Amino acid sequence: MSDLNQTITGFDLWHLELPVTSRRDHGIGSVEGTCEVVILRLTSEDGTEGFGEASPWSVFTGTPEATYVALNRYLRPLVLGSRVADRAAIMTQAAYAVAHCTEAKAALETALLDLAGRISGVPVWAMLGGKCRDTIPLSCSIANPDFQQDVALLDQLREDGVRIVKLKTGFRDHAFDVMRLEHLAQNCPEFSVRVDYNQGLSIEDAPAQVRDVAQFQPDFIEQPVRAHHYGMMARLRDQIDVPLLADESVFGPEDMERAAREGICDGVSVKIMKSGGLSRGQTVARIAAAHGLSAYGGDMFEAGLAHLAGTHMIAATPEVTLGCEFYQASYFLKEDILEEPFIVRTGKVLVPEAPGLGGRPDLGKLNHYAVAKAVAA
Amino acid sequence: MSDLNQTITGFDLWHLELPVTSRRDHGIGSVEGTCEVVILRLTSEDGTEGFGEASPWSVFTGTPEATYVALNRYLRPLVLGSRVADRAAIMTQAAYAVAHCTEAKAALETALLDLAGRISGVPVWAMLGGKCRDTIPLSCSIANPDFQQDVALLDQLREDGVRIVKLKTGFRDHAFDVMRLEHLAQNCPEFSVRVDYNQGLSIEDAPAQVRDVAQFQPDFIEQPVRAHHYGMMARLRDQIDVPLLADESVFGPEDMERAAREGICDGVSVKIMKSGGLSRGQTVARIAAAHGLSAYGGDMFEAGLAHLAGTHMIAATPEVTLGCEFYQASYFLKEDILEEPFIVRTGKVLVPEAPGLGGRPDLGKLNHYAVAKAVAA
Repeated sequence: MSDLNQTITGFDLWHLELPVTSRRDHGIGSVEGTCEVVILRLTSEDGTEGFGEASPWSVFTGTPEATYVALNRYLRPLVLGSRVADRAAIMTQAAYAVAHCTEAKAALETALLDLAGRISGVPVWAMLGGKCRDTIPLSCSIANPDFQQDVALLDQLREDGVRIVKLKTGFRDHAFDVMRLEHLAQNCPEFSVRVDYNQGLSIEDAPAQVRDVAQFQPDFIEQPVRAHHYGMMARLRDQIDVPLLADESVFGPEDMERAAREGICDGVSVKIMKSGGLSRGQTVARIAAAHGLSAYGGDMFEAGLAHLAGTHMIAATPEVTLGCEFYQASYFLKEDILEEPFIVRTGKVLVPEAPGLGGRPDLGKLNHYAVAKAVAA
Repeated sequence: MSDLNQTITGFDLWHLELPVTSRRDHGIGSVEGTCEVVILRLTSEDGTEGFGEASPWSVFTGTPEATYVALNRYLRPLVLGSRVADRAAIMTQAAYAVAHCTEAKAALETALLDLAGRISGVPVWAMLGGKCRDTIPLSCSIANPDFQQDVALLDQLREDGVRIVKLKTGFRDHAFDVMRLEHLAQNCPEFSVRVDYNQGLSIEDAPAQVRDVAQFQPDFIEQPVRAHHYGMMARLRDQIDVPLLADESVFGPEDMERAAREGICDGVSVKIMKSGGLSRGQTVARIAAAHGLSAYGGDMFEAGLAHLAGTHMIAATPEVTLGCEFYQASYFLKEDILEEPFIVRTGKVLVPEAPGLGGRPDLGKLNHYAVAKAVAA
């Protein structure tokens, strides 16, 4: 019997509130004080453990409580007693076992992959197609309503070798966005700049403001209008030379197919928390590439465990060409949850070589930050 | 000061488990033992109370736990201290305050309408455009895996004057569906018959099975394939003379616009639990009508309070021409939660004339069936 034919015997959960260093304003909403994630631990018969993280955002993908209960009540019965080998079957069932809750499904696939990888002695990327890169360029977001704090962050990023920043726009007013773009152009020429509205613009304001911002020639402009405004996305795309990217408009492969068909974007933000797993995230990137569109590895407000999952996905997905945004563990959380830090070196995320995810959470931190848990004695 | 300028001072919740009389199998999943709903009570300064019900289904719209927390944590702050008058402003904020959770938003709008109606002394339908009908034809679903129990139910429905049934198909096999359609054709000629797959067919099976079922000339065939299979919906529509209706493919106005544009259906199931409220449900029906498409008033596994909300919406929406499905309070729940029964007479739902919803839940039953509650002392 293959070791992967072990059954899964343990299914434990922690709902965490993790303190953060600063406020972040996005077009879609704000995060301040703490961010909340849910950690899943699967255990197989021989005691091997696999971990996964769900990183919900209540205004974007869903609430942490919905994530927690999706795992605890609706997905747990599909998993306990199943074989580690049967990942595709489990994920197929999970897709329809509970509506929405894509972060819960991402955590489940992550934990199943980590478990299988540790049992087999291979990294997660080896189970997703093999590796196409050893490092991934990191983009850090500039999203503080107090721009002076972001100026200090830019100094730190420069020193750390980070060379991509994404300016979050559309949460205050156009003058504030232009002021910050001018600051970046004048004082930070070494940085590539991306612009992300997170749906922050109205249909009335979008064309003029987006054309104006395009004159700064950012790498791309992301999701200026509401997720379902496909028609306006397509019109904006035609009005600028800068690539237009979709984020909230594209959760899974079903959306990506439609987005490509309706010509709403030049590229897409792939996030395992939106797609409902690493495999579906790969599919989003591949549908995009089949249409000649680009992709980058986005994230939610995550801890290092979700960063690791995203890193393995991107490491195995050549179609994700525009780097990643896994900055929170290093630049946003007061303390990450991993035993060993998530590694960013000279502005690049290092792809792990160890089995599974190549990192695991510190149980002491899980228990310390937990506001709810379901852990077998 | 208008009485509607009172502020909302109370916001109480009950998460109920309501025992049901039989198992129901749908293409999307099954319900057995109990169904779960969440009841919201709003109280205004003068002590007037308004009630609303959220009726989630975990495989369809979301989980009851997600609904409960959406109301308790994410929507409560928008509501407490707001004026009863400011319903449109509250609902606009609620739409983006938490992702998904359309049932929670439906409960909120229902309670706001009930409260405003009781304060003003007018029925809810008067605030939604005025009335276009006094009764609504009732359709009851035939969904028991044990068809002999449904044969007994058909006898009861016949005796009660109900003349529309909807056969739930696609959960076992085609032969079972055809056998039941033949039974209805031979033994129940007085019933209009509708067919609903709830996404139960694969792309491979759908064309042949749907064409076959269309030969029985049901009133319509509903949602044979997965919600996102718009292309196949459009193809199936072209292959049959019977109207094809969309249910899971259309949640809110954003979906309806696309469904009409892509020609996936001849009509739509309007449900306030999908659209996120009564007003948005009306909009779905009106977009459909603007495209020459029909609409009926669907529901989830609801108690009588949600039936009342749907009844008022349909009473004020001429575009909903195909009746309603508010059968659960009478034919599915072991006991409904309303103080006075939800009234169905000779197969028609009676539109209430009393202020607000024209009915309210029995507090003793709320407390009896509650598995969680957040009720101020």
